[in-house]
Amino acid sequence: MPEFLTLLLPDQARDKLLAALSPLTADPEPIASDSALGRVAAEDILAPHPLPEFPRATVDGYAVRAQDTFGASDSLPAYLHLIGEVPMGEPPSFDIGPGQCALIHTGGMIPKGADAVVMLEYTQQTSELSKDFGSLNDEIEIFKPVADGENIIRIGEDVAKGQIVIPKGATLRPAEIGGLMALGITSLRVARLAKVGLISTGDEVIEPGQRPQPGQVRDVNTYTLGALIEKSGGVAIRYGIFGDQFEALKEAAAKALSECDVVVITAGSSASARDMTAEVIRQLGGPGVLVHGINTRPGKPTILGVCDGKAVIGLPGNPVSALVNGYLFVVPVIEKLLGALPRPKPTVQAKLTVNLPSQAGREDWWAVRLIGDRQYPSGTMSSIVNYLAEPIFGKSNLIFTLAAGDGLLKIHPDATGLSAGEIVEVMLI
Amino acid sequence: MPEFLTLLLPDQARDKLLAALSPLTADPEPIASDSALGRVAAEDILAPHPLPEFPRATVDGYAVRAQDTFGASDSLPAYLHLIGEVPMGEPPSFDIGPGQCALIHTGGMIPKGADAVVMLEYTQQTSELSKDFGSLNDEIEIFKPVADGENIIRIGEDVAKGQIVIPKGATLRPAEIGGLMALGITSLRVARLAKVGLISTGDEVIEPGQRPQPGQVRDVNTYTLGALIEKSGGVAIRYGIFGDQFEALKEAAAKALSECDVVVITAGSSASARDMTAEVIRQLGGPGVLVHGINTRPGKPTILGVCDGKAVIGLPGNPVSALVNGYLFVVPVIEKLLGALPRPKPTVQAKLTVNLPSQAGREDWWAVRLIGDRQYPSGTMSSIVNYLAEPIFGKSNLIFTLAAGDGLLKIHPDATGLSAGEIVEVMLI
Repeated sequence: MPEFLTLLLPDQARDKLLAALSPLTADPEPIASDSALGRVAAEDILAPHPLPEFPRATVDGYAVRAQDTFGASDSLPAYLHLIGEVPMGEPPSFDIGPGQCALIHTGGMIPKGADAVVMLEYTQQTSELSKDFGSLNDEIEIFKPVADGENIIRIGEDVAKGQIVIPKGATLRPAEIGGLMALGITSLRVARLAKVGLISTGDEVIEPGQRPQPGQVRDVNTYTLGALIEKSGGVAIRYGIFGDQFEALKEAAAKALSECDVVVITAGSSASARDMTAEVIRQLGGPGVLVHGINTRPGKPTILGVCDGKAVIGLPGNPVSALVNGYLFVVPVIEKLLGALPRPKPTVQAKLTVNLPSQAGREDWWAVRLIGDRQYPSGTMSSIVNYLAEPIFGKSNLIFTLAAGDGLLKIHPDATGLSAGEIVEVMLI
Repeated sequence: MPEFLTLLLPDQARDKLLAALSPLTADPEPIASDSALGRVAAEDILAPHPLPEFPRATVDGYAVRAQDTFGASDSLPAYLHLIGEVPMGEPPSFDIGPGQCALIHTGGMIPKGADAVVMLEYTQQTSELSKDFGSLNDEIEIFKPVADGENIIRIGEDVAKGQIVIPKGATLRPAEIGGLMALGITSLRVARLAKVGLISTGDEVIEPGQRPQPGQVRDVNTYTLGALIEKSGGVAIRYGIFGDQFEALKEAAAKALSECDVVVITAGSSASARDMTAEVIRQLGGPGVLVHGINTRPGKPTILGVCDGKAVIGLPGNPVSALVNGYLFVVPVIEKLLGALPRPKPTVQAKLTVNLPSQAGREDWWAVRLIGDRQYPSGTMSSIVNYLAEPIFGKSNLIFTLAAGDGLLKIHPDATGLSAGEIVEVMLI
């Protein structure tokens, strides 16, 4: 049987891993709302009071009793006596009686007696107004009738008391933070950051600050994955670089497992180093290795395991493979642990510049550069595709293949490649 | 003349503002590479040495002299004497002579004398090998010829010495941080964060921690914009809430202008409060107001100004208007100050669920919820549109209209609306 029929596809492999994990619900972290950008709400946020808390004008104009305007027109205006101006930030000191109106600004509190607001543009002053209004000559012409409730927002019409305004699992963006402030919720509980232990292996791998001797290369994966983890709601904890010595690696992995929520081991290049990672996962705790090898390129040697309820992931040593599979597997694990509700992945539509081959049955990911208008999106289909997607071909899949790319292009396993000119979706990285 | 012919569109207004601003080149900030996620490189990064620094195998197999394999086939294999194994992380202690080969792993250093690598799958051992190889019986059958250079990456083939690997203006993502590490560049200079002073105005506005009295509302804009600024490479500095008193507002704005790179004033709801902002900008410094009123909804009252070389932006008091126009104007200003190279905006394709009206000539932005598969993108057009876009209608444009939304949908000024079923592009927020 060909190998691609025995290996799981990335989606299947990820599902299998995520099904074995539970969110970190134990110890949510209290945090000031204005420091909570990017964090995940650990509780449903309920409105402690309605919004608005008082009936408000939604336009600039005159607060009126709607029935006083019925039948008003350009040729036969209604005449209302102007009795005052609603101050911003405090309740008006007057009520609106029959035949009366008051100047009001957007957001102003509707005076008692009034039940609608006539927009300024449908009104006219009949004469110079007195300084504080209220004199008998302060008269306003109304040229258009308003219905009861028109241009008013009632108490609780935006948000009712007790309504869930931010669900548990929501990632807090600027809008959510503003919403919390609107309700006076200046702190909340968020999921604590997921701790991800990072281990590099390989006799050839050295710290980035060191000068490589012939045959040596610097550790890249700890830092690409560390940044990805930080960006995704985790905190990366580095356990260092281990040569191809099984016991030392196993000991480091056991320490990382006891101190972290997830352990990621990037394998050395040699086949024996890769096998070592699988064996470490087997010995760390049950159930051990769930997926060994995934039907994707790059990333076939990826290993997904669970030891004592925690994800342990073995990624290939190649920097591009490690980072692409970090996006595919490590980020979703963090999101699951945080209890984050699913969110759309940022993408861009583009027209492929060249033919890209792929093996049917396997999912391929290519780093691509996007060329074209990088500004704001347009609203109609004809102008949606503002980019060309140009694959970046690199002989050794050095990390600069990804650094030169704007995103990753996926070739679906059902496809036998993509043709030049095809419209593709690029996941921004 | 209708107003929409006299007001600038957002793109034109933004261009006018950005043209009057220069990047903050004066004092770039030194930073450790592994802390630089999301920062903008303030200098071109050149490779201090080539990558790779030694010729490396790109596959597992045997290092050979290519000419020794010429003519090899399944029926007539070449027989090579196995003289050793290339250790990972150090140079091999042997050279490859005629008729010889050495076991090598991906990433291993090519021994002197060898000029190609035969993949393991095209080889076979003729017998049990001796422990350290090198005995006369250690023989490998080669079933396929390799060309000179095959399965080898030469010195500098990925990156040449002196090559620009990360251009000035690049935003540092996980891939860039890994690239720096690959070259041993453990620190670099990045653009310092842009300081943005935030001022709220309006007699009705109070601090979020206070309990509103009738007629009062809590400050939302300082916090939505603060989070947006933080997310975009800026640092928000709050100057507080000012009632509709001109002199106090002007004094605060002058202080903010002297201490910050950008000043953003969100106006109170009343027309007089909005006019006050324009007047403050006029008095702060030249050239003053560049754009007063923009042909967009929400956000018509937006004011763009430059005082003494610094952007001063007046945003509408309505929380949705303020945040949408923050995305449209404040973020691009920060990006310009950082000297950030343009990057594609994250978007998602979706099918619109309802008809959306708009006024021809005006650019409209709607908050939309995306409904559908929120997982990874697909590679072919037929499966690109995985979402429905459902506009969120809110009577008073409360901030929860945006908090409930996944993104913003733009209706192009040339359009007179969008039809249900149309494919649209949604900018993620």
